[in-house]
Amino acid sequence: MNETVIACCQLAPRFGEPVANRAGARRAIIDARARGADLVVLPELAVSGYAFAGPQEAWSLAEALDGPTVSGWAELAHELGIVIVGGICELDAARGVLCNTAVLVDRTGLRAAYRKVHLWDREPEVFTAGSQPPPVLETEHGRIGLMVCYDVEFPEWVRLAALSGVELLCVPVNWPRSPHPESERPGEVVRVQAAASTNRIFIAVCDRAGRERGVDWIGGSVVVDPGGFPLAGPAERDAPITLIARCRVADAADKRTGERNDVLADRRPELYGV
Amino acid sequence: MNETVIACCQLAPRFGEPVANRAGARRAIIDARARGADLVVLPELAVSGYAFAGPQEAWSLAEALDGPTVSGWAELAHELGIVIVGGICELDAARGVLCNTAVLVDRTGLRAAYRKVHLWDREPEVFTAGSQPPPVLETEHGRIGLMVCYDVEFPEWVRLAALSGVELLCVPVNWPRSPHPESERPGEVVRVQAAASTNRIFIAVCDRAGRERGVDWIGGSVVVDPGGFPLAGPAERDAPITLIARCRVADAADKRTGERNDVLADRRPELYGV
Repeated sequence: MNETVIACCQLAPRFGEPVANRAGARRAIIDARARGADLVVLPELAVSGYAFAGPQEAWSLAEALDGPTVSGWAELAHELGIVIVGGICELDAARGVLCNTAVLVDRTGLRAAYRKVHLWDREPEVFTAGSQPPPVLETEHGRIGLMVCYDVEFPEWVRLAALSGVELLCVPVNWPRSPHPESERPGEVVRVQAAASTNRIFIAVCDRAGRERGVDWIGGSVVVDPGGFPLAGPAERDAPITLIARCRVADAADKRTGERNDVLADRRPELYGV
Repeated sequence: MNETVIACCQLAPRFGEPVANRAGARRAIIDARARGADLVVLPELAVSGYAFAGPQEAWSLAEALDGPTVSGWAELAHELGIVIVGGICELDAARGVLCNTAVLVDRTGLRAAYRKVHLWDREPEVFTAGSQPPPVLETEHGRIGLMVCYDVEFPEWVRLAALSGVELLCVPVNWPRSPHPESERPGEVVRVQAAASTNRIFIAVCDRAGRERGVDWIGGSVVVDPGGFPLAGPAERDAPITLIARCRVADAADKRTGERNDVLADRRPELYGV
């Protein structure tokens, strides 16, 4: 398998300006492609913004999976021959609920929609939590899995993805900034590094930037390898930036950490029940 | 609850010299106590050394739980009024097997022996893997749990300890050095940081030093807080050193990460089955 060029486009969407945000995402995707990207990852809720005042505002900014955002990304993926992963405020009209959803589109169209399972802070006031495991998508760039933000901080969830065959986990996030020792990386980044290395997978996290209703962001976009070491980033700045990383995704099929050890085979699941 | 002073005595035992190594550990414990330590953590296999040529050599260096090493530590714990955690090459005569074991002694004597469950590299040629969960010990310094080295790299195992009430996990290790990017912390340290923060517990890791039969060590002793940030270390040098950290262990009973979030309560275990 050839090298895959991964781009994380850390955008700075403006709250409640979907038309402008869609245009901004489009420009970033086209720029990333010009820099060689095969796969573009965008932030969580990349078009709506994050800091909803309540359900009503979220409903007014929600879109179905065949709405303008996903359709636009699918067209772009087809036109440019790339894979795009990004987060939307999804209106699931059939169930009459909103979900915090990551989609993956490729040249064939929408491949998967994953609904965030672990909701953060006030999100339950707006979103219905998903109850499906992270999808595993066979693509020309290897087996890709999807999660959204807080999901990736649950080792059980990342393990499930790895055991299901995910080689590259793409994670749109909106990481609110909180205090941490100045000489240390944000805990969110550390947990992503560990999640990658305990499962020997690649993880591409795309965070956002741009103060929104008093919330600042880590701007911690990062791509880590199966050893847990950054291939690009962490950006660690609250500003738009595109990270570019190159890797051979299929390398993540090898779970060995030595002649006699394997991070998945060495588990003792018969002992893990509580 | 008062502050607890934790000391990790990163020793440099010499292979196959148990008498000298016992004396060295004793000196380090007394020195740590003089620096205020309430709890002393020693490395894995602190007295025998690690790099056994094979089972015969391991048997010749093994000791029962009432052997000179554990008895000596128990006497010292009684005399100094402290808690000591350390690793031994345990002869389990009843079963006729060797185990890679961590013990905890306090002023009352031997409180627990935990047998390493996840064996590394050639260890299965020498040791029988444990099959019991990490113990949870009520002590005057909070609820202490034990693991040995590779165990702590399995998120399932640390989660189990946290769900069982462990507030401070003490982990004797022998971390062989392997290449990693120079600007990065060793992956072992990163995984410990993440294990602490995903469970909001303290973790005290005591590594070793001193080249042994061609094996070098990370010398990565570290004490991390429930945010995953180092309170002391990582030492990151292949030399003897004692790290001192102060903390209120009971703080780890609080699993909240915000007004509405809790790292254990936010789990969705009904979805985690494979």
